[in-house]
Amino acid sequence: MSTLRSMDPQTGEPFGAPVLAASDADVDRADAAAVAASTTTSLRAPAARAELLDQIAQRIEDLGDALIEIASRETGLPRARIISERARTTGQLRRLGRVVARGIDLDATIDHGDPTSTPPRPDLRRMNVALGPVAVFAASNFPLAFSVAGGDTAAALAVGCPVIVKAHPGHPATSALVATAVTDAVHDAGLPSGTFTVLHSTEHAIGTRLVEAPGVAAVAFTGSLAGGRALFDAAARRAVPIPVFAEMGSTNPVIITPAALAARADAIADGFVDSMTLGGGQFCTKPGVVFVMDNAAGRAFVELVATRIERAEPAVLLHQGILDGFTHRRSQSVEVAGTRTATGSRSRSAGWWAAPTIVSTTIDHYRANPTLREEHFGPAAVIVRVADIDGLVTAGDELDGSLTATIHADIDDDPVLIGRLRTALQARAGRLVWNGWPTGVAVTDAMHHGGPYPATTASATTSVGDAAVRRFVRPVCFQAWPDAAQPAALQEHNPWQIDRRVDGTYRPGK
Amino acid sequence: MSTLRSMDPQTGEPFGAPVLAASDADVDRADAAAVAASTTTSLRAPAARAELLDQIAQRIEDLGDALIEIASRETGLPRARIISERARTTGQLRRLGRVVARGIDLDATIDHGDPTSTPPRPDLRRMNVALGPVAVFAASNFPLAFSVAGGDTAAALAVGCPVIVKAHPGHPATSALVATAVTDAVHDAGLPSGTFTVLHSTEHAIGTRLVEAPGVAAVAFTGSLAGGRALFDAAARRAVPIPVFAEMGSTNPVIITPAALAARADAIADGFVDSMTLGGGQFCTKPGVVFVMDNAAGRAFVELVATRIERAEPAVLLHQGILDGFTHRRSQSVEVAGTRTATGSRSRSAGWWAAPTIVSTTIDHYRANPTLREEHFGPAAVIVRVADIDGLVTAGDELDGSLTATIHADIDDDPVLIGRLRTALQARAGRLVWNGWPTGVAVTDAMHHGGPYPATTASATTSVGDAAVRRFVRPVCFQAWPDAAQPAALQEHNPWQIDRRVDGTYRPGK
Repeated sequence: MSTLRSMDPQTGEPFGAPVLAASDADVDRADAAAVAASTTTSLRAPAARAELLDQIAQRIEDLGDALIEIASRETGLPRARIISERARTTGQLRRLGRVVARGIDLDATIDHGDPTSTPPRPDLRRMNVALGPVAVFAASNFPLAFSVAGGDTAAALAVGCPVIVKAHPGHPATSALVATAVTDAVHDAGLPSGTFTVLHSTEHAIGTRLVEAPGVAAVAFTGSLAGGRALFDAAARRAVPIPVFAEMGSTNPVIITPAALAARADAIADGFVDSMTLGGGQFCTKPGVVFVMDNAAGRAFVELVATRIERAEPAVLLHQGILDGFTHRRSQSVEVAGTRTATGSRSRSAGWWAAPTIVSTTIDHYRANPTLREEHFGPAAVIVRVADIDGLVTAGDELDGSLTATIHADIDDDPVLIGRLRTALQARAGRLVWNGWPTGVAVTDAMHHGGPYPATTASATTSVGDAAVRRFVRPVCFQAWPDAAQPAALQEHNPWQIDRRVDGTYRPGK
Repeated sequence: MSTLRSMDPQTGEPFGAPVLAASDADVDRADAAAVAASTTTSLRAPAARAELLDQIAQRIEDLGDALIEIASRETGLPRARIISERARTTGQLRRLGRVVARGIDLDATIDHGDPTSTPPRPDLRRMNVALGPVAVFAASNFPLAFSVAGGDTAAALAVGCPVIVKAHPGHPATSALVATAVTDAVHDAGLPSGTFTVLHSTEHAIGTRLVEAPGVAAVAFTGSLAGGRALFDAAARRAVPIPVFAEMGSTNPVIITPAALAARADAIADGFVDSMTLGGGQFCTKPGVVFVMDNAAGRAFVELVATRIERAEPAVLLHQGILDGFTHRRSQSVEVAGTRTATGSRSRSAGWWAAPTIVSTTIDHYRANPTLREEHFGPAAVIVRVADIDGLVTAGDELDGSLTATIHADIDDDPVLIGRLRTALQARAGRLVWNGWPTGVAVTDAMHHGGPYPATTASATTSVGDAAVRRFVRPVCFQAWPDAAQPAALQEHNPWQIDRRVDGTYRPGK
């Protein structure tokens, strides 16, 4: 039987005990078990589903320092980052528990019948039901928050979907440890074991088999464009196609107006370099391209950034594949950019270290060279200089789909310019940041972490925030049912005390 | 240049003036014009979008009897049916106008910032924006309500998406006439002409080209499984994949409990035959398969239905293709069913007439012969006899995805049986009807007209009811924007007076 090893990014050396890799038969067993668990899991009351998420959060906390230690060592991310990521992960579980306890995921909607209308209108009541087993493909860059018990798993379990996680091979020991927390909570809740399974593998074929498994009803993925698109294609080819919620690459453009640069170029340069090097530049929301005017202020800004980059520490990347991809893309971009390049400290000899890099180029080069427009996963970014104000708007109009877009502007800017930029950017991104930085994604009701392709394969959905639960449900309408035979969510006296819309009016549950 | 002719289903003969068929260049022009119109159309205020829908409704009514006449003649559907379908169509336009005037489509959500949280949480505000140009593939069986100005067009225009309709070649003159109403309303509203285009064609290649057109952002389709799947596949193959909301075939199973049959077999037989022959059996919600117990009462029910079918008038079908498909599938089913068949009046010699048909068979035959499980589009249905009560539940568990599922039950039924049936059916259908019939789909807030594949390619969405507008939008989140620079929907003083959720609490707009 094949196994996976933990690798230390700081040294490039394996360590710890091997983890067993999943076989084809393991995928098939997980699928069958998830189907068997599906009805039990989906029929639980909101309070019971919330309680499961609370228990998972508690058990992750109970793993204590052992979890922090292993996650930090497997990813090269500092302990402090892992500790805050754990807080985010458990906070997210508990928050989605509160969301479903209110019945937000059910979207319960009641239209009382109207026998006097022509034709007479029957009593109609709609609620959402769980889609069924969800395959979750974990990300490498958030070993807790977008991994085994991360946002996708939390959202799927929250609405009553069994989960089969394809763990990321970059942190197998962390994944196995978190899996024990979830599995124990599922067991203690009296749910069937098929409610939650983790599969470890380095083989793409295992992932494809999971997407093709007949019981799987939806796929959630966080990772590269190539990986997400491959799963999307596999899901679309199925006899019964299923939705793929893939959150993929993004360049997260930043547009800086002349007024903003005049007012606070230093502060913007500080913020930009901090944001693009945060976590080794391995955030899906890393600001990867900045547009400024090609004038004295714009060129001075490039130098401000270059100075900071040249002082920046090397970053340790998550795994060999990311380092190789980063090195390759950076070389390509440096080669074609044609103008200014700045690089930070040199890589160390062992391990997966990369030097922060900035490339400055003109809009003509940027247009002509696709490599400059692609995501550089790691601590690199491109500064593009455009001829004039209209060039900033045109740059916005030409962007590919992105998770975020940022405007740095000032009180002195023409409101018409701001309006044009907003119109351009809201057509191309999922979140528009004003005078801030896109890294840092709050888990709230109004958050949207998604965007037009290639940022995601499903631009109407989010993988972060309360609305993340909406991905794994579908509506069912009950027509003219006797009250006692209806699902509790739709019964007249609202036994679950959930939020509902009744005859067009919002009715909070409690 | 190639043209299409109107055909009279009652005679099979062409009539009226030819309509010009679209060329590849027409598709490309429509796409470019829709893209050019996109920003103008999408940025309109809710009240202006509602007004456009009202004006379209008014102009359809202004077409008067000429519309009723031509739609009835092109489809073979009676005048009374077309008149009520016109009322449904205009009612739907006006209703979706009221929905967007309330801002339901925007789902505006505001979370005020919290500088005291760790890390500090910025002000976050989310609203939906229009996806962009929508390609609408009209259905043959509702020449008004699911055609040029039908539900899909209404929903797309309601949220600010330009629409390119691929008209159904079964009613070209009706389509051209309705198109004038929409085009005039678009023009009078001061919107660019690319906001709405109708293309006529009998060629699949024109439809495929439309789905592949670079500006098209979503596809809505009502029709056959083969047609919907072909468009879905084309959309998934695109460099930038787009969503396809295809509402396709459905068998709309009906399960009748022994208690219901004991209480009112005659009434159920009446209702069933009325519903399955309504509109020539050409409803996507036609009850196509009925499950009863294989006992004396079940067999007596088959005879009650057979007697009514043998008295039933022949139905005129919409076009030659539907008649051919119906005849072929009915022959196959009669051949394999093995037991009782009943057929109504014989077809007339000219035109596209079909005899209502019922086939009764056992669950074993039903399981063994895929043809029995497929939709028979037209006035035919299958009655399946199962051995015992558990057989009714098992039949429910084995169903393919369907738009609807119906239970006929009675006060004497075991609540446990009802619960098991509900659980089975809600996993497989989009609307569960109690002691009624699935034909007749009310346009309300709680309606859901959708279902698991193969009923649709997007089970989380509906093509009828207020929620139909949700298909053509995606969210954008605004982070830390100054109030004056934000979209009106998200400004603090709520200038559009729309419904919003603020810090987790619903706030009606007016």
